[in-house]
Amino acid sequence: MTEDVRFGLARHVILPGPLRLDGGALLSPVEIAYETYGTLNADASNAVLICHALTGDQHVASPHPVTGKPGWWARMVGPGKPVDPARHFIVCANVLGSCMGSSGPATIDPATSAPWGMAFPVITIRDMVRAQALLLDHLGIAVLQAVVGGSMGGMQALSWPATFPERVRAAVVIASTARHTAQNIAFHEVGRQAVMADPKWRGGAYYDLGDPPAAGLAVARMAAHITYLSEAGLTEKFGRRLQARPDRPDGAISFGFDADFQIESYLRHQGISFVDRFDANSYLYITRAMDYFDLGGEHGGHLANAFRATKARFCLVSFDTDWLYPTAQSRAVVHALNAAGAPVSFVELSSPYGHDAFLLDAPEMNRVVDGFLRAGE
Amino acid sequence: MTEDVRFGLARHVILPGPLRLDGGALLSPVEIAYETYGTLNADASNAVLICHALTGDQHVASPHPVTGKPGWWARMVGPGKPVDPARHFIVCANVLGSCMGSSGPATIDPATSAPWGMAFPVITIRDMVRAQALLLDHLGIAVLQAVVGGSMGGMQALSWPATFPERVRAAVVIASTARHTAQNIAFHEVGRQAVMADPKWRGGAYYDLGDPPAAGLAVARMAAHITYLSEAGLTEKFGRRLQARPDRPDGAISFGFDADFQIESYLRHQGISFVDRFDANSYLYITRAMDYFDLGGEHGGHLANAFRATKARFCLVSFDTDWLYPTAQSRAVVHALNAAGAPVSFVELSSPYGHDAFLLDAPEMNRVVDGFLRAGE
Repeated sequence: MTEDVRFGLARHVILPGPLRLDGGALLSPVEIAYETYGTLNADASNAVLICHALTGDQHVASPHPVTGKPGWWARMVGPGKPVDPARHFIVCANVLGSCMGSSGPATIDPATSAPWGMAFPVITIRDMVRAQALLLDHLGIAVLQAVVGGSMGGMQALSWPATFPERVRAAVVIASTARHTAQNIAFHEVGRQAVMADPKWRGGAYYDLGDPPAAGLAVARMAAHITYLSEAGLTEKFGRRLQARPDRPDGAISFGFDADFQIESYLRHQGISFVDRFDANSYLYITRAMDYFDLGGEHGGHLANAFRATKARFCLVSFDTDWLYPTAQSRAVVHALNAAGAPVSFVELSSPYGHDAFLLDAPEMNRVVDGFLRAGE
Repeated sequence: MTEDVRFGLARHVILPGPLRLDGGALLSPVEIAYETYGTLNADASNAVLICHALTGDQHVASPHPVTGKPGWWARMVGPGKPVDPARHFIVCANVLGSCMGSSGPATIDPATSAPWGMAFPVITIRDMVRAQALLLDHLGIAVLQAVVGGSMGGMQALSWPATFPERVRAAVVIASTARHTAQNIAFHEVGRQAVMADPKWRGGAYYDLGDPPAAGLAVARMAAHITYLSEAGLTEKFGRRLQARPDRPDGAISFGFDADFQIESYLRHQGISFVDRFDANSYLYITRAMDYFDLGGEHGGHLANAFRATKARFCLVSFDTDWLYPTAQSRAVVHALNAAGAPVSFVELSSPYGHDAFLLDAPEMNRVVDGFLRAGE
């Protein structure tokens, strides 16, 4: 086991493992890149694990090393925020399969001294959680005060008490679901096919060529991005407004295939900028993990069974315009928690911003999470 | 002008034009492939024009020449159906820009004796309607008893009385809209980017190579196909059911990237089979025409103005699970028709099948259309 504190509190650890994965493979070593904020208290009782979403990373409250943008959840995590380094020892780890320093298709397979590529084992949400547990062992954290996540982070926050019932006292699950629906899988499959249709994907063996499947990954991101926004939000933000041109500040129909509409220009930018910060193979692996996620299915087809062993408290938040993981999916979790006798609070918040609302300024969400966490302190 | 009756009543005509297009270009000649059913009566008063959707064709009630499948709207058009060759002279023409015999990017540009490719002028829904009017002139039809269409066909059915107020007595508009929203445009832009990201697209000049951008077009189709189905319909039809395998009839998680889920297999099939019957450049042109469609925008920003000159009666039908063109978009048209003083009947039907419901068995829809058409006879 080696640990390299690269800068500030951004850390990287290589744990020997092996980690047995749901697919049967043994992963060793297990690299985990993570950040911490705050200080672990004497009885190690103030640890809060933040779980990131599909394309997120460990830099929850620190600038992104590639884009320089503020941490992706600095609205939720930071001084004076619901998750506060003054009270909490905050851990956020890059998930297994990702590309920001944790083991994934872009990291080196010690057996070949080359990047894993598609030889990396397919992982699940539960595997991500198991890797996080290894990290907590390393950090001397037996029990989490709370695990908190939105979207795929919420899947991990649900999987935590199901997988390690004794190791988590509270779970905050925002804009998430206990299982991917056919429509969820369908959108991810389109993204995967877009990546794999790009000849530059080369069966995942593109790392040494300096020419990744950027076009395919950009298309995948564009399709996914639509699902993160509400129809009403898109209409409010873009409508049919035209892209300004040098000669026409209000824009004009070009009768061509340039980005006439602002929404086209915005989507193209989302696609292009994404490929600078994300690995195409990681996109395949993580979307697969999300599609496989079915917490009830892992527990005999009864979601309530997932929660019978835990003493954790739960807090669920959904957004009324989120059509990726609609409120009905949170309600299904709440019903299962009720059936399991687990304490749960649930609120559906109103927002025009669809699924992305959990990443945006949402004072009500912050109040709910703040109150829920303080009630356990 | 030449006319070639290729088989049965499937016809192809080359009209001299020129047709002035919204983009400013003059198109000449104007090729139109169409089918007719029934007989035009003595005073030419029984003509019904059927308008097809994005990937539809003129074979509304005849087997598709490539796939051999029944006509795409044989449930609506045929003996004993609401549009009935025993009463009506039925015309269905392949739209301008398409690839089933009407002028489009795959047809020959007489100036170069080579396929137009991306040199084909960008067209609009109104241009499609103008080309249909040329065909009606050729057929000796001054006034339509009715124009009927669903989805993009409904856009044409709306554009007809706005463009030729004296030439249509009734319009049936099903599962459609008077303008594309930002979300509608966004999905189409993803599809276009998928096609154009395929290196085999070659700027649209792929016709002579026998190797079209099939992978990109398949991804485009997959993304679009999701929007044609409802979330509930997908859950009912596929849920998380696994694809049967030779050794496991109930399927199994492969921990790989094969199509584990039935929805994945279904979508891949949709993508692959689409490229056998459709041209990638046509997909670009027709999606562009749909994105440009804004009937209110064409009339000073007031949709009601589009209908002030016509005496046509209108019938609108929407489906409650259609999230591509939700009921609210039909209601907006109804309100504009009310404001213009045009007679309109409107019904929202219940269906689990989303946007595609208009193509499926929908006895209520047939009753509504049948009653509406008979009321004008």
